Amino acid sequence: MDSHPGSLGSVPQIDPRASVFDAATAVRPAADGGLTADLDPGWDVGPGILNGGYLLAVTARAALAGSPHPHPVAVSASFLRATAPGPVTLTVLPGTAGRTVAHSSVVLAGAAGPTLTAQVTTAALTDERPLYSACPPPAATPVEHCLPATDDGTHAHPMPEVGLRTRVHTRLDPETAGWVRGEPSSDPVVRAWVRLADGREPDPLALLLFADVLPPTGWATGRFGWAPTVQLQALVRAVPAPGWCLVEARAGEVAGGWLDEDYRIWDATGRLVAQSRQLARTPRA
Amino acid sequence: MDSHPGSLGSVPQIDPRASVFDAATAVRPAADGGLTADLDPGWDVGPGILNGGYLLAVTARAALAGSPHPHPVAVSASFLRATAPGPVTLTVLPGTAGRTVAHSSVVLAGAAGPTLTAQVTTAALTDERPLYSACPPPAATPVEHCLPATDDGTHAHPMPEVGLRTRVHTRLDPETAGWVRGEPSSDPVVRAWVRLADGREPDPLALLLFADVLPPTGWATGRFGWAPTVQLQALVRAVPAPGWCLVEARAGEVAGGWLDEDYRIWDATGRLVAQSRQLARTPRA
Repeated sequence: MDSHPGSLGSVPQIDPRASVFDAATAVRPAADGGLTADLDPGWDVGPGILNGGYLLAVTARAALAGSPHPHPVAVSASFLRATAPGPVTLTVLPGTAGRTVAHSSVVLAGAAGPTLTAQVTTAALTDERPLYSACPPPAATPVEHCLPATDDGTHAHPMPEVGLRTRVHTRLDPETAGWVRGEPSSDPVVRAWVRLADGREPDPLALLLFADVLPPTGWATGRFGWAPTVQLQALVRAVPAPGWCLVEARAGEVAGGWLDEDYRIWDATGRLVAQSRQLARTPRA
Repeated sequence: MDSHPGSLGSVPQIDPRASVFDAATAVRPAADGGLTADLDPGWDVGPGILNGGYLLAVTARAALAGSPHPHPVAVSASFLRATAPGPVTLTVLPGTAGRTVAHSSVVLAGAAGPTLTAQVTTAALTDERPLYSACPPPAATPVEHCLPATDDGTHAHPMPEVGLRTRVHTRLDPETAGWVRGEPSSDPVVRAWVRLADGREPDPLALLLFADVLPPTGWATGRFGWAPTVQLQALVRAVPAPGWCLVEARAGEVAGGWLDEDYRIWDATGRLVAQSRQLARTPRA
């Protein structure tokens, strides 16, 4: 259908000099006919814990290697346990592959066994304009007036030094970052502009990374602590334009030890390009 | 952790006299150690095509049979192809099972092979009140002033006679049912009160059914035709109170042959009890 290198069983050969993101998400054929990846410790969100969006991108690359279609359009992953850096295997179970969509199931396993299982749907996204769009981008603060999500000495709340923030430039909208100044909000909403630190422009794989890239929404309300993802669905709706993406996450319901986080992602032209929803555990007090 | 009969590998034995829904979603041990179900033709949404929510409920029952926890809290399913009535096998691949959550992958296969694959997360829902809730129920028309979703001779648009509507009482809110009177809206939103026709009260399994129970949102805008589900994630957030559930579905973005439908479900007390989001193909013109 197109010139995508990963068609019909071949594995895309990625030049590791091209992009830190591409190198860190690359998958290679394994001796047993499966796929392997070497997960990069630089994408962590805590000691030995890799970011969920990073894992979605690796998982999608594995599915694309066996798909006739070039783009991940839907990825639903169960996070069985935290995934550590280092070598992993990716086992792709083909589902159906038609002219429009292909489905597969992917199991990502480290030395101690599976840590993530996913349903991946691939297809070819087009640049058709939307027939209907209910979610225009919010009136966000321009990126040059936003706040870094790394600790620059001005933050009331110390930002944890995690690898993810060195790999993804994250500029927090001050409108939803009162917590940075020690002034939490009653609304569990976090908004930021993001782009890859290596200069690579966004694409559907990067949108999977961005689908879980923000600090937990609880931070906006002054409840610091991690909210481990239990299950996450990311939908990619269009190929993004070059430049910064605007990402907004909001919790809908917090009850009984659970919360949901809804992400919307718009590209530099203001087009909705991805959505995600995750069920997570509330942080331990 | 509780008295749920489906703990640690046992298969819940359901009395088929108890409820049409329970009988139609029952799973039984198969000779090869897996599970089977006999899919009931009465839950169709078109000739030989079963409703997606019905299939989610069957899939969740298979996962619960091998889980120490009583409730499905997250189910993400890829719809590989339409699923027809009749005998199917359900293969459950265990993920991890901890004190709080358990994960598994389920493959539902008919005579021609797999038709649905899913990630299922199980846990024990509590009746703790929400700490935060961003989604109060909309001001819906009282159920006694709503419209039947079966053809009673008063509808401008003939309602298709499908089994699902005989199994689930569906009362369309006139505020989002102008299309029934031949007056479509510009908003792809459908809202209805639903409950099982057999009189069984809602529970987390019934909420999975309700997570895909409404007519396609395109119908609200006068675009009739089916929007086949490609991938769907349903989250169950609380055990629902007895009585009618209010279900609202809205499309967020329609572009390039794809649309998303977001469902929210509130119980009779107005509590948010479930959410779902599906990626679907737009109806063929």
